Amino acid sequence: MTALHRLQAELGAIVSVDPGDLAAARIDKSGWQAFGMPLALVAATSALQVQTTLRIASEFGVPVVTRGAGTGLAGGACGTDGSIVLSLAGMNRILEIRPQDELAVVEPGVINQDLNDALAPHGLWFAPDPASKAISTIGGNIATNAGGLLCAKYGVTREAVLALTVVLADGSLLEMGHRSVKGVTGYDLTALFTGSEGTLGVIVGATVRTPARPTGAVSTIGAVFADVASAAAASASITAARLRPAVMELLDPSALRAIAGYLGPDNMAGLPLGHGAFLLLQTDGPLARVEAEAALRILREAGGDAELSTDRESGEQLLAIRRAMHPALAAQGEVLIEDVSVPRSRMAEMFEEIARISERTGVTIPTVAHAGDGNLHPNFVIPFDPDKAADAPLVPEHIWAAADELFRAALALGGTLTGEHGVGVLKQRWLIDELGETSFGLQRQLKAVFDPQGILNPGVMFAAAK
Amino acid sequence: MTALHRLQAELGAIVSVDPGDLAAARIDKSGWQAFGMPLALVAATSALQVQTTLRIASEFGVPVVTRGAGTGLAGGACGTDGSIVLSLAGMNRILEIRPQDELAVVEPGVINQDLNDALAPHGLWFAPDPASKAISTIGGNIATNAGGLLCAKYGVTREAVLALTVVLADGSLLEMGHRSVKGVTGYDLTALFTGSEGTLGVIVGATVRTPARPTGAVSTIGAVFADVASAAAASASITAARLRPAVMELLDPSALRAIAGYLGPDNMAGLPLGHGAFLLLQTDGPLARVEAEAALRILREAGGDAELSTDRESGEQLLAIRRAMHPALAAQGEVLIEDVSVPRSRMAEMFEEIARISERTGVTIPTVAHAGDGNLHPNFVIPFDPDKAADAPLVPEHIWAAADELFRAALALGGTLTGEHGVGVLKQRWLIDELGETSFGLQRQLKAVFDPQGILNPGVMFAAAK
Repeated sequence: MTALHRLQAELGAIVSVDPGDLAAARIDKSGWQAFGMPLALVAATSALQVQTTLRIASEFGVPVVTRGAGTGLAGGACGTDGSIVLSLAGMNRILEIRPQDELAVVEPGVINQDLNDALAPHGLWFAPDPASKAISTIGGNIATNAGGLLCAKYGVTREAVLALTVVLADGSLLEMGHRSVKGVTGYDLTALFTGSEGTLGVIVGATVRTPARPTGAVSTIGAVFADVASAAAASASITAARLRPAVMELLDPSALRAIAGYLGPDNMAGLPLGHGAFLLLQTDGPLARVEAEAALRILREAGGDAELSTDRESGEQLLAIRRAMHPALAAQGEVLIEDVSVPRSRMAEMFEEIARISERTGVTIPTVAHAGDGNLHPNFVIPFDPDKAADAPLVPEHIWAAADELFRAALALGGTLTGEHGVGVLKQRWLIDELGETSFGLQRQLKAVFDPQGILNPGVMFAAAK
Repeated sequence: MTALHRLQAELGAIVSVDPGDLAAARIDKSGWQAFGMPLALVAATSALQVQTTLRIASEFGVPVVTRGAGTGLAGGACGTDGSIVLSLAGMNRILEIRPQDELAVVEPGVINQDLNDALAPHGLWFAPDPASKAISTIGGNIATNAGGLLCAKYGVTREAVLALTVVLADGSLLEMGHRSVKGVTGYDLTALFTGSEGTLGVIVGATVRTPARPTGAVSTIGAVFADVASAAAASASITAARLRPAVMELLDPSALRAIAGYLGPDNMAGLPLGHGAFLLLQTDGPLARVEAEAALRILREAGGDAELSTDRESGEQLLAIRRAMHPALAAQGEVLIEDVSVPRSRMAEMFEEIARISERTGVTIPTVAHAGDGNLHPNFVIPFDPDKAADAPLVPEHIWAAADELFRAALALGGTLTGEHGVGVLKQRWLIDELGETSFGLQRQLKAVFDPQGILNPGVMFAAAK
């Protein structure tokens, strides 16, 4: 009996071998497409089905690629040749909301925004806010330790996870973490699994923190600077003044040009956006207005052409500029969204490096940064080519060469390859450069403790065969 | 050549075999005293010396107990028979403070308060605030993932650690984490080492977050309730109103009686403290006064006899009541400070369980809780006994029996054995009850990845031989 037969015999209709289903399971939002074809797609709706799947996979030594909504940007959940793709999108129940304890218990397939909608009547929220929050799952957020726009003020996903229920490679169930706010019994496996990209186990349940949602109206500031260096310096001054806006985004001139072209001049909130760099701030909570006024003074002193908006509508118009970044680039071609992070004080230098790499390679690299935390998203746009061969790589070698320079520059500035997207398949070849050989070797051994056969998402994070 | 000769030959004067030094290295602030006598005390002042020590320890298979200021409360850093005690108290340099990046780089022996004093002129702080902060080291705070009074608002130590430099059992150096705010490259080893109690490696350097220190005057509220149940209900109402005081401490009647006896009635801030339970709140930041007034209304509605103080002096008087808890108990005997944590909503039930256990066993258990996060410290007082045999155990069996009931009650309420002190030696026998066999086994395997010979703090967290 083959693994497929066993899956079908034990799990029935939730096992699909439909070519359309399998093809769709090979891609994520990075545009990456895994080679070959998965063996099957298992659409689990219970932890028991996940356990059965893993037990069979272990028995037959078949790789398992766990998948939520497929919104990843690093190729970390793309069904590889001969693998079982285990979709948890159907495990989407909110099991418990406990306002007294400011926590919720969810299945992994719950959409981030759906949890937030359910929490809103209680005055609570789940703070992690990846740009994909309307479509990405909590399980995926946890598996990648997702960031977002609000992290400098509200933390990353790791800080929001109290406990996990996980299915291990052999199908056994493992509970980790605690429902209490504090707990230090044993090693912090919950943190170890957060960001482990499907390589240690399959998250089938999560207890997450749901603290008080900030109240009151937000204030929003849009500021135009002559160049990216002065915008970066201004954002550093905001941090130095110990202000902590909820959002602080920096768009470089090439990003701005793309957006202006896409939205049209009438939708640029009246800002002189044909040139220069754009800094977008949003303050929230009871002191939103006071903080925004303090920020406004600093931005103007730093040479910014800055406007404060306290009404919802014009604030939304400013945010719409930032949100148009990806659609504007996607209209021009395939987009490889990079994700380096550097210490805040090195952000201006990183922008300089990007400009230098762009000039040297002739590749334009429109960049947006979460300026509050030094996380930059340099974008590589690969123009659509109707004559492109079907088996041509998504990202041409000269783009990878530019990306390679960019990663090395980030590391040299004391930064990291990936601030929030994860290593996935796309950055695996640089992993050892950041970790060093000792850490790389130890991390592979840690994986082997949980997954001795190496069936969980092989090829993700670490190279498949070593 | 013996291990001791090699240590002396390679490290010279930093190796002590003075019986006084060795005896002092056997105890911590829990009162626990390890059996037998350590082989040597190595007072390292550099990472290189730590590497040398570990290399020799590995070669000879000698256990290493790493120690900071010895302020632990779980017997986790007590020099065991024949071990090398590796003191990092002398590695106490603050290497770097980077206000732009809101981070500091420190050696592990830096005292928590000393770092905070150095950060104050920059308007920054290191938020973890164990009660021992005036005397405990950052390395020890990290090794135990220390909590404190402010955690519900400002997080535990794990949230404050960006990167670590660690010496592994074989003497090799390992860097983990990042200087950037975000970073998701590989597994989160930094979180794994935080709270690992010296069992995975020796922390020789830490890069910690130093965010903006809250500004302005604090407001303090003292409130007396008829009983602990109504005080716990009132604290739940504060949380339910989405207020987040920096401090919210709850003292039960038996704790209050001990403190009143110790301080005398004139030092009880004019509060009717012969009976009932005491709730102490402190709000901070720019909205301190507004939040305190909202809290005051809630506490009074909940039946509390509550007073708000906004001047520093009377606020200090209220805090002094809380601070007198340990000295008041220590005046009566040896104190075993327990440390269970439960979901906030179960705190009142946990107090009931403690009362029940106290009644059944005839042992009084004065208890204070960090009520904002559900972390309770039930205290067992063992009266001084001049006739006690020198080799009698610190904690008599009937006290352990009561503690055993207490731990099981906490676990049954969805809580944990230890909220912030760690497992150490004292709670090791309950570890498997909380973790379960699967997790227990996996955690031992994780340790083996970093410490294959099992020389790092054997007997701490896990039982020594298994």
